[in-house]
Amino acid sequence: MTPNTAHAVHQIARPTDFPTAAEFAFASFPVPEPVPGTALVENLLLSVDPYHRGLMDGGEGGFELNAPLEGRSVGRVIASRDPGLAEGDLVFHREGWRTHALVTLGAAGTRRLRVHEGVPLEAYLSLLGGTGLTAYAALTRTADLQEGEDLFVSAAAGGVGTAAGRIARLLGARRIIGSAGSAAKVRHLTGRLGFDAAFDYHDGPVGEQLAQAAPDGIDVYVDNVGGGHLEGAIEALREYGRIAWVGAISTYNGDRSPAAPRNLFEVVHKSLRLEGVLVRHHTHLQEELEEFLVPHLRSGRIGTDTTVVRGFDRTVDAFLGMLHGDNVGKMLVRLDG
Amino acid sequence: MTPNTAHAVHQIARPTDFPTAAEFAFASFPVPEPVPGTALVENLLLSVDPYHRGLMDGGEGGFELNAPLEGRSVGRVIASRDPGLAEGDLVFHREGWRTHALVTLGAAGTRRLRVHEGVPLEAYLSLLGGTGLTAYAALTRTADLQEGEDLFVSAAAGGVGTAAGRIARLLGARRIIGSAGSAAKVRHLTGRLGFDAAFDYHDGPVGEQLAQAAPDGIDVYVDNVGGGHLEGAIEALREYGRIAWVGAISTYNGDRSPAAPRNLFEVVHKSLRLEGVLVRHHTHLQEELEEFLVPHLRSGRIGTDTTVVRGFDRTVDAFLGMLHGDNVGKMLVRLDG
Repeated sequence: MTPNTAHAVHQIARPTDFPTAAEFAFASFPVPEPVPGTALVENLLLSVDPYHRGLMDGGEGGFELNAPLEGRSVGRVIASRDPGLAEGDLVFHREGWRTHALVTLGAAGTRRLRVHEGVPLEAYLSLLGGTGLTAYAALTRTADLQEGEDLFVSAAAGGVGTAAGRIARLLGARRIIGSAGSAAKVRHLTGRLGFDAAFDYHDGPVGEQLAQAAPDGIDVYVDNVGGGHLEGAIEALREYGRIAWVGAISTYNGDRSPAAPRNLFEVVHKSLRLEGVLVRHHTHLQEELEEFLVPHLRSGRIGTDTTVVRGFDRTVDAFLGMLHGDNVGKMLVRLDG
Repeated sequence: MTPNTAHAVHQIARPTDFPTAAEFAFASFPVPEPVPGTALVENLLLSVDPYHRGLMDGGEGGFELNAPLEGRSVGRVIASRDPGLAEGDLVFHREGWRTHALVTLGAAGTRRLRVHEGVPLEAYLSLLGGTGLTAYAALTRTADLQEGEDLFVSAAAGGVGTAAGRIARLLGARRIIGSAGSAAKVRHLTGRLGFDAAFDYHDGPVGEQLAQAAPDGIDVYVDNVGGGHLEGAIEALREYGRIAWVGAISTYNGDRSPAAPRNLFEVVHKSLRLEGVLVRHHTHLQEELEEFLVPHLRSGRIGTDTTVVRGFDRTVDAFLGMLHGDNVGKMLVRLDG
């Protein structure tokens, strides 16, 4: 890669089932000059996320073929004709999947990063980024988790899952239980991540394993999976339980409708609440999130929980690996390594 | 019936599918003498409700065979050894399905009726009773209906449905749309009950009929039915829509699990909220409900919307008729007629 050449990942075909590298291509182009009102950013860190799988199918708001792709990124301004941005500024923006981009402060979610001394860059796309904000909104707003309550998180070793575990602990949750897709992840959950119990969902029906892990039931469920996980959680939820439904990663390939839980009517019998969480409805909580988490990130009480792939040319590998569950915590691509 | 003989309906067998009169029997016994701490009540008005169908299956909290049955009732005290109740007092209690009962103030939900001049007795078991309270809690608490919002109600000609229509109008709903099970009920909804649109769910998929009745979508759905109705409503709900799930009367016989909506994941995509409503969690709203409705009942702005069957010996007929949808509004049995 020469200094005057920029690189980008394009999608070149629609996946029929599980995405492969064949649906992507790397494109090169001259590093653009900032036009008035824009700044040129060199990206340092890129986010690849489960929701990108949905965008790959195209349609309204989806990825266009042979075009730049949306993705959360942290970059450094290297030339600016935007009066709000100066050379050297760190910015959060959505022009991801590429090495360089032109951005405009305040447009498309572009904001100057509030840099917190002692906080690693990875935190801005994990706990302080979209996944952390999703988990924070799910717990403090949608589910309204109270001190002393018991929580179950599915896909608990993933980006939103690890963030939910960290944040719930800080909020004073009593027992935190997670499900994951491998024995190694289960060990990681009950080890480093401090979950009180965890299980591999391959080992048996979620309802049965959850009943063993939480014999007295749960108060809140953060759902990243849907289907059988949702059904098992409904079984375990106590009266007035709340479900913050974030995603259904297990069903993003192939059949797009997660199997609906057969026991959904328990929502009436137990006065449960099931509510969807879209992070774009909670961006006003960004500052609150940072005030809540930064002291703990600084003190080292919590880590950033990331899997960082190094090198822009491994962006597609990182994305596919994330879909296969290779990551623990938030999957990121670091460009300056 | 002689003055010294009391009568009661007992359940004598479990239904295998749709209940029939063969599962009930009328029992006679001497009118009881009040023991200290109790009052003898002569029932004036009995309520038969969809939830009784569930109780017929027995199990925890269900009807016992060959025993008195639970049911909301209004009666008059005819002898009292309860210091809180005087002869002539009107009481609301749960010792239904019978002509006479011993009750204790404050026990099992027994309360002295706050008698409102100019309000017919039927109102205390309909709009001011459990069905009205259910609808009021569903709209003002669970769904938090706002002025100017659009509402869909299923089983709209039933007890909870008619109450939801009345209350939503008073709360300032914009368009109120109802589904029902016959052309006559549909006419009643758009006629006397003032619904803006209504349809017979036999005439086509709920989603399609609702899309015609509410081409711009709905904000709130009060669900008395589940299954295909819930699926159709999820389709029609706008972003941030709320579902107050009250019951699933269509599935109370035979298969007890309503078919789960195939589009449930729209709860995430549209940031919807689905929440169960149990009236027993909202009894503290009774006074608020009365303050809200009594002026309108007195002025005649709203009616009580009841189907009243006369004569205790027709109690089982009333119950079975209600399950068959013979009623418009709340189904009641009047004993003094």
